[in-house]
Amino acid sequence: MNLSELVGQHAETLQSAVRANAERTFHAHWPEAPSGKIYGETANDDGLAAFMGQKGQPFVGLLQTSDGPTVGQEVSPYGFDLGVTYPGTNVEALISRANDARLAWTSCSPGERASVLIEALERASKRFFEIGYATMHTTGQGFVMAFQASGPHAFDRALEAIAMGYSAQSMFVESVDWTKPMGKTSVTIQKSYRIVPKGINLVIGCSTFPVWNTTPAMFAGLVTGNAVIIKPHPGAVYPIAIVVAEVQKTLRDFGFDPHLCQLAVDTIERPITLDILRHPSVTVVDYTGGPQFGAVVEREAAQANKVVFTEKAGVNSVVFDSAESLDAALDNLAFALTLYSGQMCTAPQNIFVPRTGVAAGDRQLTPREFADALTERVNALVGNEKAGPGTLGAIQNANTARRVEEAAGLGLQVLRAAAPVRQAGFDNARSISPLLLLTDDSRADVFEREWFGPIAFVIETESFDSAVEHVVRGVRQHGALTTLVYTTDSNKQQRAEDAIVGAGAPVAFNFNSYVWVNQSAAFSDFHGAGANPAGNATFADLTFVTARYNVVGVRVQK
Amino acid sequence: MNLSELVGQHAETLQSAVRANAERTFHAHWPEAPSGKIYGETANDDGLAAFMGQKGQPFVGLLQTSDGPTVGQEVSPYGFDLGVTYPGTNVEALISRANDARLAWTSCSPGERASVLIEALERASKRFFEIGYATMHTTGQGFVMAFQASGPHAFDRALEAIAMGYSAQSMFVESVDWTKPMGKTSVTIQKSYRIVPKGINLVIGCSTFPVWNTTPAMFAGLVTGNAVIIKPHPGAVYPIAIVVAEVQKTLRDFGFDPHLCQLAVDTIERPITLDILRHPSVTVVDYTGGPQFGAVVEREAAQANKVVFTEKAGVNSVVFDSAESLDAALDNLAFALTLYSGQMCTAPQNIFVPRTGVAAGDRQLTPREFADALTERVNALVGNEKAGPGTLGAIQNANTARRVEEAAGLGLQVLRAAAPVRQAGFDNARSISPLLLLTDDSRADVFEREWFGPIAFVIETESFDSAVEHVVRGVRQHGALTTLVYTTDSNKQQRAEDAIVGAGAPVAFNFNSYVWVNQSAAFSDFHGAGANPAGNATFADLTFVTARYNVVGVRVQK
Repeated sequence: MNLSELVGQHAETLQSAVRANAERTFHAHWPEAPSGKIYGETANDDGLAAFMGQKGQPFVGLLQTSDGPTVGQEVSPYGFDLGVTYPGTNVEALISRANDARLAWTSCSPGERASVLIEALERASKRFFEIGYATMHTTGQGFVMAFQASGPHAFDRALEAIAMGYSAQSMFVESVDWTKPMGKTSVTIQKSYRIVPKGINLVIGCSTFPVWNTTPAMFAGLVTGNAVIIKPHPGAVYPIAIVVAEVQKTLRDFGFDPHLCQLAVDTIERPITLDILRHPSVTVVDYTGGPQFGAVVEREAAQANKVVFTEKAGVNSVVFDSAESLDAALDNLAFALTLYSGQMCTAPQNIFVPRTGVAAGDRQLTPREFADALTERVNALVGNEKAGPGTLGAIQNANTARRVEEAAGLGLQVLRAAAPVRQAGFDNARSISPLLLLTDDSRADVFEREWFGPIAFVIETESFDSAVEHVVRGVRQHGALTTLVYTTDSNKQQRAEDAIVGAGAPVAFNFNSYVWVNQSAAFSDFHGAGANPAGNATFADLTFVTARYNVVGVRVQK
Repeated sequence: MNLSELVGQHAETLQSAVRANAERTFHAHWPEAPSGKIYGETANDDGLAAFMGQKGQPFVGLLQTSDGPTVGQEVSPYGFDLGVTYPGTNVEALISRANDARLAWTSCSPGERASVLIEALERASKRFFEIGYATMHTTGQGFVMAFQASGPHAFDRALEAIAMGYSAQSMFVESVDWTKPMGKTSVTIQKSYRIVPKGINLVIGCSTFPVWNTTPAMFAGLVTGNAVIIKPHPGAVYPIAIVVAEVQKTLRDFGFDPHLCQLAVDTIERPITLDILRHPSVTVVDYTGGPQFGAVVEREAAQANKVVFTEKAGVNSVVFDSAESLDAALDNLAFALTLYSGQMCTAPQNIFVPRTGVAAGDRQLTPREFADALTERVNALVGNEKAGPGTLGAIQNANTARRVEEAAGLGLQVLRAAAPVRQAGFDNARSISPLLLLTDDSRADVFEREWFGPIAFVIETESFDSAVEHVVRGVRQHGALTTLVYTTDSNKQQRAEDAIVGAGAPVAFNFNSYVWVNQSAAFSDFHGAGANPAGNATFADLTFVTARYNVVGVRVQK
């Protein structure tokens, strides 16, 4: 198949995604269920076999040049070494190959680039199950979540970014004959508008969402004509390496240099992120990860006038005022606290409750009664042998486990203690149930910090409005990726919406069903407001794509 | 008239502008001719009378609070003090008023904001002639140019920015019911997407284009819901003060706080730009002006994670290889060199000519013959008593006049010396004809610097390709806002286009009529590529508007 046939082949996929970005109704190009009926009866077995075959071996399938001794230090949070190794990296060589690869890609039309990238996603989607196992055993996510987050959800986010980049680049004509009337005469200039990509786009990944948090920037960078360098967290390379390999093969098959998309793997001991970032050819930097290193990335990039997008983290809050059905609300909240053991940058940490209590139908619960009821729902989910361990998954990083111990030692009232969780088949898994603490708003010194992991606080406040004020202060000072408010009072709802949105954080109200505040839907929810200290990136608004290129005009006298 | 009627009234203007931005054909909402037939037979006299009446008086019409002793130090380059004074400024008070004004404006729809701003432009357009005289006597531009640049052209750029901002904010629905199918059931979330402006937008003006270089950012900031603070150059306040006054009156008339758009005037001795820029409430900064202070603005803004747009300057080049009609080409180039005495950030400075000479029809000119022919055309224009003085105008800044002397003392071969030019009626005008120097490409130490003002170099190079290489090196190292190439060879044209566009500068070919490389047309030419060291702003691409706000989601369980 040649390039123009490919454009035709994926036109419907692209146009549907463009339409979904504008209309923001439900849209999913890849079904989220890890089901044999959808993906083939042997897909799970094949994926697991591929994963087992890759363990302990050099990673298979990359087309890029290796610059030195291979590296690899992934360890499954379920308790074993992966032993996969990847090409070694020399920064100068990496950049040089990226620069060499750029010209032909830049010369393509946005539609051609979009089609090649959709083709790459379609090919990589055939490996969703392997990606799922690779994600499970680098991040600690339960398999179903790993499949969804790194598979269909991440790929839909990638398609969203491709479509947004295509839309933005297509907002103006490519060329025009411009005729200026001048009384009895006129003058005509033939004009064309060329997309000039910024150059090389470095995408720095994180250990907990190695695919979902990388694909938006990766495909936004590529669709706007840049070369990309993917620098994954050394602890979570394998899942995104699969995507990179499929992109490289697709590029090659359509006549492009696979080095347009390179994987740059380093180790904890010898990091290379800043060496790549500081190279003058690197003009766009994307970062997802912890706030401390994120601040370094932001500062270094800004000083060198590079475009920088960050998605760090903040302190996500809940305000619980009232609910029609307390059980449905608490089930939803308990799941949000439990899912992947709070290791989502969108997971709630602080649950503010007015001192006057929580209204549930005709009942009125004291803060303590509310806290106990929430604890009970968390206990029920954790203790559910079928659902609990898979929902919790394992703890990616030993530091997170230590943080749970630190929080337990704060001297606050313990609603439920963290405890080891058995993950069937993985006796050495680092799996811990959530720690829930009760306090009041005099302890801002504690709860205004980010406690990444399975740690949450129920916090008594003076009133609903003082709870919202706490949320707003947290958003302004530390940032937030999500907030969640439960209230049956429409005036309170409007006040909370205005205050929280005004502070630059998204807000959800009264979630009580199969949508959780931690999750954002591609094509509909903008992920990361970009308007508070939690980060300046939004997956995928216009700026997320337009800042990656310029439009440069050519004028020819006719 | 109320706000919704106003939306209807300006709907056609807005939609035409939106369409023009996409199609990029010729579009002008305000005719550029300073003609009584268009603007009213008494418009010129009325404008002049308004200007004469304003001289020596406190500026009339601003609705903003004054914070202290009035200031004003404008001097006409045509040789007299303007003596206009403006409200004094206290930075904290200025910011506080801007913040107080924001809420109601933020709550408007993008269409409502666009309509109020178009209304303000329509009202201010009634004062084009006064704006023209105010511009002439602050910048030194000849009257016709002053009228066009600060009147119709600047207002079309403002309308372009309004339309682009409106388009971008309207690319997604405002709200949607999102229903996710889940097998036999489904879940519905009511979603809305709120535009959250960044906050306060500081717009720093320059002395040579106080309106044209300010209105794009000013109206981009406002249409995206921000408050703006206009900090003009202390030498060129009056023209933009008129626009600010009309915006303030329009805001008041439609129930908004006029402090959404404030003028902050300072003096050369006591500058306040950085004090405003550093205030934490100021989140977006626009700058047009010299590269030195521009670099300070960029650094300070970047360090504080503020959005910053700059349009500085660079070294604009011409390559002259061949032309079908040498006379037509040279007339065009001579005009570009002479217009406003080279005081445009888009004016050519370096004219590269291959050592092998210039082909013109069946003639072949040596570089010296070419240089002499160009000199002759400049002489003819300068010496034309009707056209010359008005085209040249006067020199805004005494430093520019000194720079001409410095250049004359470089020891290069003088093609034509700069000389005083008489401006009828203004015996003390600082008006100077262009200095043209001849050199070769061994003197990169000289011509690779920016020589702002009526200074140009004809530079002999090895070949066409080495000339293009010089241009590209200049673009990469010092930036450029324009480049211009004359060649009848389509291969050479393509090579030049690829090289120069690839380096991030726009390029024009074979201009030989009534369009000059210095000028860019609203709705069609993107001004400022944003892709080279001359600045990161483009009037008006998508990023120019989208970086001024975020989209923040609200999700409500149904």
